[in-house]
Parts: sequence; structure tokens; C-alpha cells
Amino acid sequence: MLSTEHLRDDLAALRERQPLVHNITNYVVMNLTANALLALGASPIMAHADEELDELLGLASALVLNIGTLSAGWIASMRHAAEAAGKRGVPIVLDPVGAGASRLRTDTALALLGVAPPAVIRGNASEILALAGAAGKTRGVDSTQAAHAAAAAARQLAAAYGCAVAVSGAEDFITDGAEDLLLPGGHPLMPRVTGLGCTATAVVGAFAAVAPTPFRAAVSGMAMMKSAGEIAARQASGPGTFVPHFLDALHNLTPTEFAASRTPLQA
Amino acid sequence: MLSTEHLRDDLAALRERQPLVHNITNYVVMNLTANALLALGASPIMAHADEELDELLGLASALVLNIGTLSAGWIASMRHAAEAAGKRGVPIVLDPVGAGASRLRTDTALALLGVAPPAVIRGNASEILALAGAAGKTRGVDSTQAAHAAAAAARQLAAAYGCAVAVSGAEDFITDGAEDLLLPGGHPLMPRVTGLGCTATAVVGAFAAVAPTPFRAAVSGMAMMKSAGEIAARQASGPGTFVPHFLDALHNLTPTEFAASRTPLQA
Amino acid sequence: MLSTEHLRDDLAALRERQPLVHNITNYVVMNLTANALLALGASPIMAHADEELDELLGLASALVLNIGTLSAGWIASMRHAAEAAGKRGVPIVLDPVGAGASRLRTDTALALLGVAPPAVIRGNASEILALAGAAGKTRGVDSTQAAHAAAAAARQLAAAYGCAVAVSGAEDFITDGAEDLLLPGGHPLMPRVTGLGCTATAVVGAFAAVAPTPFRAAVSGMAMMKSAGEIAARQASGPGTFVPHFLDALHNLTPTEFAASRTPLQA
Repeated sequence: MLSTEHLRDDLAALRERQPLVHNITNYVVMNLTANALLALGASPIMAHADEELDELLGLASALVLNIGTLSAGWIASMRHAAEAAGKRGVPIVLDPVGAGASRLRTDTALALLGVAPPAVIRGNASEILALAGAAGKTRGVDSTQAAHAAAAAARQLAAAYGCAVAVSGAEDFITDGAEDLLLPGGHPLMPRVTGLGCTATAVVGAFAAVAPTPFRAAVSGMAMMKSAGEIAARQASGPGTFVPHFLDALHNLTPTEFAASRTPLQA
Repeated sequence: MLSTEHLRDDLAALRERQPLVHNITNYVVMNLTANALLALGASPIMAHADEELDELLGLASALVLNIGTLSAGWIASMRHAAEAAGKRGVPIVLDPVGAGASRLRTDTALALLGVAPPAVIRGNASEILALAGAAGKTRGVDSTQAAHAAAAAARQLAAAYGCAVAVSGAEDFITDGAEDLLLPGGHPLMPRVTGLGCTATAVVGAFAAVAPTPFRAAVSGMAMMKSAGEIAARQASGPGTFVPHFLDALHNLTPTEFAASRTPLQA
Repeated sequence: MLSTEHLRDDLAALRERQPLVHNITNYVVMNLTANALLALGASPIMAHADEELDELLGLASALVLNIGTLSAGWIASMRHAAEAAGKRGVPIVLDPVGAGASRLRTDTALALLGVAPPAVIRGNASEILALAGAAGKTRGVDSTQAAHAAAAAARQLAAAYGCAVAVSGAEDFITDGAEDLLLPGGHPLMPRVTGLGCTATAVVGAFAAVAPTPFRAAVSGMAMMKSAGEIAARQASGPGTFVPHFLDALHNLTPTEFAASRTPLQA
């Protein structure tokens, strides 16, 4: 059972170790992702050239894969990176952006899961449902119970791949198949900013480099997004001014303040 | 003859329908474009993989093509997307970035116009002149009368492709070949921010999904840029602080305030 | 011996001539780079298509090459651009991002230096050491004297390629092999923002278009980064709010204020 002391310890560890997080992500969010990781205290690398992935993953403490703007070459790079990370035991965090919206995205996400089991999958409800459905892990979804269905799909994916799954929304649902956690909070402006879901995945990636379990990395990362989002929303007057304040909050929040901001951890 | 009530109605429709706008655009502006569309109330998709364009354009209400950072693969994607949009009647808005600066850009813009007629072309005066010249629609430009020449070129392009053309500048000139409109306003800081022209094109794309005519979409979109720019400039102390305030203004401006901010519509 | 009057004159020349700076840079920093150049008073072009590089470099006053997110196609574009710039006498500024972290990066940076001699190389200490080492210009580095070693490596690279070299850090070290300069200042928030090193390279590129020598371009560009960074840090509450204020400062700083902000030039 996680407590807010675990959040405090994970952020303290992240700030101390400054883990190198390798990202192969989409063009839209590369800048925000790198800035969020730097603000948080991690060190981002963004690189996709086949020729250098083995060397660079030898330096990395986590790998973040995000399928937001795919093409054949980038899919090959992500497969290569997943393989190299798998061999080295570098934890992989997967963001199946748009799974379900096109067959290419669903298939690519599924193929990456097949190359090496991830530590964490982070998506929204429809992505997690699409992924579980395509993996044959769900038997049809009752659309009148979307939140319940996404939770069930997340548990099934977690069990199938031995990983944690974070379903983001107004309330995040996080599970490792055995233990569940609901995370309320954040702010309605957040879905009006592009790439905050992708940022959540990268932030979970940074915590995956330092937290003792993937489930705890998912909880710490998603909680950090909620806490920073709440602080930013109090200073912002819209989705544009939200972003700089959000990055400031990732940087300025201390481990103790972070723990206090999510007390009690479970609503 | 358009009135500010049309602006109000178009923004209200956009906020209600939240149209999905598919963008194949340049690397420099992807993040700003997605954020501007989200702030405005639309839903952006950024995707260029050949394998998923047909599926994704089946979901889209508008297609925005922008040739800012070309390569052979991206040109093929844009052609494919234009074809898929043309078949489905999805309105296309084209931004011929840098037409005239290189033959590749002029030829690519022209080729895309040939694949499927656009709803709107949005460019600056030199791009519109280059495009009309290359299309054989102008017979030489008297450089002492650049503004007049651009207006004539815009009218010729509009007639040739059955579309609206928006020429942005200190005063925007908008035409569908039959009707013209001059739109003053905005702010001198705007050309000092990268990608606001590209953002204008995407904003026109969002209005093209909901407005009754391409001409009206062009007017509503370009007017929204002027109004949000004027609000942002009052809060900014330079081109850096301009951007977050601009996005806030796109988000916060109500349909009624938008109409009032451009009264009377024609100077 | 440079004085602050040279800084003033170089910024005045930049603002007056508004040089066109062609950039082939990485995906992460494209938007910030273009915005920094526009804010400063230059005109950025971002383009990498082989088919248009000759035409576009015919218009450019400087070429900035940055190897941050490599792939085979982009390496070929950079080689082509370096060749075209070399033929035309357009000054080249190279940013060897991550040289030393992978063989691909070290080799690519070295290959680009071989295509056409640059006006300026701008990197951090480990990149400059890796580059000098790979070029056979150093005979092993005593890690207890990293700053001295980087200075020696920078002087050797400068002599080998007949260029200026800027090593950025808490204190920037700038040399053309004959003359050295140490530039203190800036702010600890700066390494917490992604792409400010890449921005420095682009800013040096803009000065390379107008300054009488590469050494002076390097000094003026690096000094501008320090001055704008100091102003931004006074207004920022973290790395997120730093960025818009930094761009404002690049835009608002007058040549006279710039010179005064770095008086005396040498600490």
C-alpha cells in the first residue's frame, strides 16, 4: 500500500540521481518533453538514429517510447531501442498515442509490447481499451461503463505484460494487475494543452529509473503531473500561460511539498 | 456581405462542434499549431504516415497542409492526404510556405493544388504572387504596386481553383474571386513570432470545418488571429511573452467578445 | 583586443541588416531557434530538402548546422548544405551536439568539418574535448583539469580548422587559436532549459553574418546569451517562465544596453 512518503522518497531520489532518460517520441511534444524532464531534475536524450541507439541506451536509465507521429523509419528505431533496452534491463515506458484511431498505431503499440515487456504503459481510456482489445485481452466493452471497462482493460494488460498501467483522466487509474490506485486532482485546463499526456509518460519514465517498482513509478509520475498542474492552474489565465508555470512547478516543488500536496494519497 | 454576427456564429459553432483538424505541417510550428487549435476549441491530429492517412481522414473535418519543412516523403504524404480529403469532401486549407523562395516549394504547392482543389489558400503577399505567377495566372508584377499586385494574384488564384485566398499582412486581404474583404489590426510583434502565419492557416482550417463558405472561414479565421493578437500584445512585453497570452486569448475570447472586437468588420 | 563597443556595433549591424540565417538543426529546438533569431532581429530559414538547399543558400548570410537528432538523410542534407555554403563563402557555425556520446555524432561532426571549414564551432566542454580527441588534436585528457583541457582542445581545434571555438559553461571560453576570452555571467537556470546551447549556436550564426571576424561573432553571440539570460532570470520563477522572458530580452535589449551589460568585457 503506497503512502505519500513514497512520493517524497521517489522525488528525492530523482533529484539526487538525475537519471538519463532516452526518448523516442513525436515531433509535436519533443521540446515540452525535454523541458519537463530537465525541470523535474532528470537528463533527457532525444535520439532515434539506428546507428547510435545501442551506445546511447548503454548510458540510459529509462527508455520512453511514444508513437504520436509515426513513420516506417521511426517504428524501426523504436523496435531497435526496445530490444536494446530489454537486453540491458533498462525500464521501458510506452505511450500508445492514438491506439484505436488507426490500425497502424494499434499494431505498432502491440508490436513494441512484443519486443520487450514494458515497465509501464500510460494512455487515456480509449487507447488502453483499444490496446487490450487488440491484444485479445478484452471480450468486448460495454460502452455505458467506460471507466469500469478501462480499469478492467488496464488490469488485463498489466497481467498480460507483467507491467503497471496508468489510465489518465480527470481521475487517473493506476494498476499493476494486483494493486489499484485512483488519483484525483489536476485541472480541466490540462487537456487543452498539447502533449501533457506525453509529458506524463516521460515523467513516469524518469521515476521508473529511480523507483523500486513500476507501479510506484507510475503513481509517483502521475501524482507529480497532478500536483504541478494544480499549482500551474492557480497562476495561469489560460492554456498558454499554464505551460511555463507548469514547468516552473515541476522544478520548484520539493519532495516534502510534493508529498503534502497529495495527502491523503488515496481519495 | 459579411457582418460581425457571422464571426460570432462561426466561433460559437466551432466551440460547440470541436472539429477534428488533421495537420500535415512543418516541424517548427507543430507544437504551436496543436496548442492554438486546442486553445481555440478544436481537436488537432498531427500525422503523416501513409499507412494511416485514409483511416484518419475518415475522422477529420478539415485538412491543413503546410509545406514549411519539405522532404520527398512528406510531399508524398501531403499528396496522399489531399487525395483522401478530396474524395471525402473534407475541406483543405493550404499554406504555401516559402513559395517563390525555391522551385521545390512553388512546384509542391502547385502540385497539391492540382491533386484536389482547396477550400482556402493562406499565404503572405510574396507567396501568393509566386503561386499565381507559377500557375500562369499573372502576367508579370509591377513591383511598385506590390499590395495591388498581391490582391490581383489572390483574385486570380481564387477564380482558377474555386477557393478563397487570404493574403496576410498588416492588413489581411481576403477574396473568393467575387467578394473581397480588408482586415486591419493585429500587432507589429506578430511577424516577430515564428509560425503565426502557419497558425493562421490552421485556425482557418478549424473554421473551414464549421463555416458555411470557405470565404467566411477565411474571414473568421484571420479575424480571430487579429483579435487574439491584439489582446496578447496588450499583455506582452515582447515576442516571447506574446505567445502564452495569445494562446490564452484564443481560449478565453467568447463569440460575442470576438464579434465586438472586430466591429465594424470592414474598415 | 575586443571591447564592449564591438558588442554594441555588432548588435546594431545585426538589427540593421536582419541577416537571413539558414538552419539545419534538431527537432527539439527548431521552434526556440527560429523564435530566438526573430526576436534578436535576424530572419530564420529552416529547410533540409536536398532539392532546394542550393537555391536557399544563395539567399542566406549564414548557415547553422546542429547534429542533435541525426539520421542518415539529415546528415546528407547537412553535408550538402556545408558544401553549398563553402562554395559561396557563407559562414558556417557548427554545433556538435553529443559528440563523444556516440560514434555517429563524433564522426558526423568531424565529417562536416571536413566538407568546409566552419567560421565557429560552439559546444560544451565534453563535446569540444571529444571533437579534438577524435580529430587527433589532443593527446589524452587529464580529467582533474577538465577546464584547462577543454581550453587546450578548443585552441587546437581553432588552429586546425582556422575557426573560432566557443566552449559554453558557467564561464564561456572563446578562442580563435591566437586570442582567448573568458565570459562570465548567465544564470544557473539556463542549463535547465532545453536547447539554450543550440540557441547560442544560432545566435552566433546571426552575428557571423554581420561581425568582421568569426572570433568577434562568437564573442558577441555568447555575450548576448549571457545578457539576455541575466535579464530573464530576474523576471522568471523557474525554467518555464524563463523562456518567454529570455526571448523578450533578445528582442528588447538595445545595442547600448547590451554593451553596458557586459562592462568590462573581460573579467
